[in-house]
Amino acid sequence: MKLKIHIRLKAGVLDPQGQATRNALHSLGFTTVEDVRLGKFIELDIEEKDPQRANRIAKEMCDQLLANVVVEEYSIDII
Amino acid sequence: MKLKIHIRLKAGVLDPQGQATRNALHSLGFTTVEDVRLGKFIELDIEEKDPQRANRIAKEMCDQLLANVVVEEYSIDII
Repeated sequence: MKLKIHIRLKAGVLDPQGQATRNALHSLGFTTVEDVRLGKFIELDIEEKDPQRANRIAKEMCDQLLANVVVEEYSIDII
Repeated sequence: MKLKIHIRLKAGVLDPQGQATRNALHSLGFTTVEDVRLGKFIELDIEEKDPQRANRIAKEMCDQLLANVVVEEYSIDII
């Protein structure tokens, strides 16, 4: 079963990497760019047939390793 | 207009960061994980009302700065 996990900074948390990217885009002439937020995107293959169990395992993986839940939030999509 | 850009390594390109993540998940007990691929996820706010033009600008930004088109591929979603 394939899973897609998006990990992004929680709203309100400063994103210096996003700001640097925005500044770089501005200096390249893309001045219509207003805000940039960077996140991680993880594609996982997991040996599991039950979508609910796969979702629970993905949640555990995010909480334990993949995301820093203090400043990041995540969403899990099963395909 | 909001854009979501996914940047991932092209198929066939080695992903050492993904392999390290997979190994770390295995050592935490998530042994059903078979493959992990890491990518970037960018949320952009852009001052542009025409979706087609927004898409073209996003493509230019990816080609010039956001993605390394030699080893990475990208997809653009407009919301």
